[in-house]
Amino acid sequence: MRIAVDAMGGDHAPKAIVHGAVEAARASKGRFEVVLVGDRDQIETELQRHFNIKQLNISVEHAAETIEMHESPTTALRRKKNSSIGVAIQLHKEGKVDAVVSAGNTGAVMASSLLGLGRIKGVARPSIGSFLPTPEGVCLLIDVGANVDCKPQNLLQFAIMGSIFFGRLFDIEKPKVGLLSIGEEESKGNEVTIRTHQILKQNSHLNFIGNIEGRDIMQGIVDIAVCDGFVGNIILKFGESIFHTFSASLKEKIGKKIHSKIGALLLKSSFRLVKKNYDWEEYGGVPLLGINGVVIICHGKSSPKAILNAVLEAEKTVEAEVNTYIKRELEFSGE
Amino acid sequence: MRIAVDAMGGDHAPKAIVHGAVEAARASKGRFEVVLVGDRDQIETELQRHFNIKQLNISVEHAAETIEMHESPTTALRRKKNSSIGVAIQLHKEGKVDAVVSAGNTGAVMASSLLGLGRIKGVARPSIGSFLPTPEGVCLLIDVGANVDCKPQNLLQFAIMGSIFFGRLFDIEKPKVGLLSIGEEESKGNEVTIRTHQILKQNSHLNFIGNIEGRDIMQGIVDIAVCDGFVGNIILKFGESIFHTFSASLKEKIGKKIHSKIGALLLKSSFRLVKKNYDWEEYGGVPLLGINGVVIICHGKSSPKAILNAVLEAEKTVEAEVNTYIKRELEFSGE
Repeated sequence: MRIAVDAMGGDHAPKAIVHGAVEAARASKGRFEVVLVGDRDQIETELQRHFNIKQLNISVEHAAETIEMHESPTTALRRKKNSSIGVAIQLHKEGKVDAVVSAGNTGAVMASSLLGLGRIKGVARPSIGSFLPTPEGVCLLIDVGANVDCKPQNLLQFAIMGSIFFGRLFDIEKPKVGLLSIGEEESKGNEVTIRTHQILKQNSHLNFIGNIEGRDIMQGIVDIAVCDGFVGNIILKFGESIFHTFSASLKEKIGKKIHSKIGALLLKSSFRLVKKNYDWEEYGGVPLLGINGVVIICHGKSSPKAILNAVLEAEKTVEAEVNTYIKRELEFSGE
Repeated sequence: MRIAVDAMGGDHAPKAIVHGAVEAARASKGRFEVVLVGDRDQIETELQRHFNIKQLNISVEHAAETIEMHESPTTALRRKKNSSIGVAIQLHKEGKVDAVVSAGNTGAVMASSLLGLGRIKGVARPSIGSFLPTPEGVCLLIDVGANVDCKPQNLLQFAIMGSIFFGRLFDIEKPKVGLLSIGEEESKGNEVTIRTHQILKQNSHLNFIGNIEGRDIMQGIVDIAVCDGFVGNIILKFGESIFHTFSASLKEKIGKKIHSKIGALLLKSSFRLVKKNYDWEEYGGVPLLGINGVVIICHGKSSPKAILNAVLEAEKTVEAEVNTYIKRELEFSGE
């Protein structure tokens, strides 16, 4: 197996990305090869910072250009034919790699994946989910930004794709699916969710437990929370900001009082454990589901650890044949 | 001024409600009278728990029935003609009180307000907002549940009503209004928000600063965040749950380790300050905007303090003539 890593994408690229890729290659113990895609000189400079690189299964594919985080995806893709993400997707298309991992400009990763690899037959709209922490695991919130203004049929497909991905990745036979709404009763919600509830209920392949509310997302009662990308994106960004706000507020209140500072010191390990629980880096990245290929999208701020986890997730997604199952389920569902 | 308090509505009614009403009467220093509405016997028993009641400006209006929290609003209102909320709204309709405060079944409060008091001329849909904490104050998220599937014109009215309420309540001349979406650019969002952006931009009475994202809600960059009730309700419940999840998680990690326990003790005052910052009880309640009257809706879990603050908010809303300003602004806007 070969996994391409977009070495130039992300706020801390190429340094953090190359570092994470090296860790992934060490963790692979020869199961897969890591292909770093980007500016060869910069990548090789970064590689030299690490020990025993020669013994690792890493190669470099040169790409002369980089799409920056702030660039408009469509314009950038048109102008930069040799961008690192473009070259990585092309390698995937040609069957030279089995998966692509990128922490770059999300819009550009999505657009080049869609253009380069295309959709799985039967999938109307590919989708990105995101993992949110629960007391004992994670919940996949899907969709989180790729698709606004969805029809019930789109939400059904998000539920199916999310369910297959989650089930295969974590070896769960019937992951629990909830529909995000404003009340548990099936009559509660907006027009689209009320209609979606009915078609989710009728689908015998899904383990649909009904509507869930905002408060339920992180309680661990569902494995997959289905919503359109408008709601999902707002929830995701709101959630991320709350932890920052909360920590900043606590830090400010602790201030310079000596007993508070000692208290904070004594609680350090507890804080760290909580942080670990609510840390997206633990989950690495999320797949773009519904395309003809395996593309794992990482947070722009990805650290080496996030990249390591994303590469391992890519390996698992390929191995578990997630796309084969999605295809089998949706091929004849029409668009 | 007379302010009716629904003594029977809320998870901790009548005890917590009567307690809060007594505190409000003490705080009023004769500026207003508190009218407790509900079962006379129960209310009087509760009143006797407090000192010097005779010197306070409190009266009781009997209402034989109570709408429970779990009841279907429409059915309950039809069957229980003498419910505490129904009687309170009737008093308001007859001009015998100037405002109503209730922590009861939100649906029932809304329905009886709408039926009993009607909408302000020009208002297509009355709306509930909710205060969310920011580093140095609050942000009014509007709508949070009354209205799903909104048109741009509805969202414009939420922005106007929210802006008038916030401005009058906190003496701010031009409160900042943001439209909740998935990107700052005006082209970002779903169909409704993209069209709403245009009409908000054209309204010269609003201080519209543009789209905001989920992460911006609690940063203090806007005073009013506009969204439909589907999104608002999910955000609100998700946000409430995060704090609980976070605290529970921290408590669990602290566990029984002695140094962690000492640390927690030393940090107690800092934790309390943060909690105070993020405590909805500080804000008491939120008005149902756009109806012919002043109705403050409180959280079902309201404590005496929340009720006290809600009554003071009702006083301020009446005094500041919020409805006169809403009427002036929307009277000729058509529906």
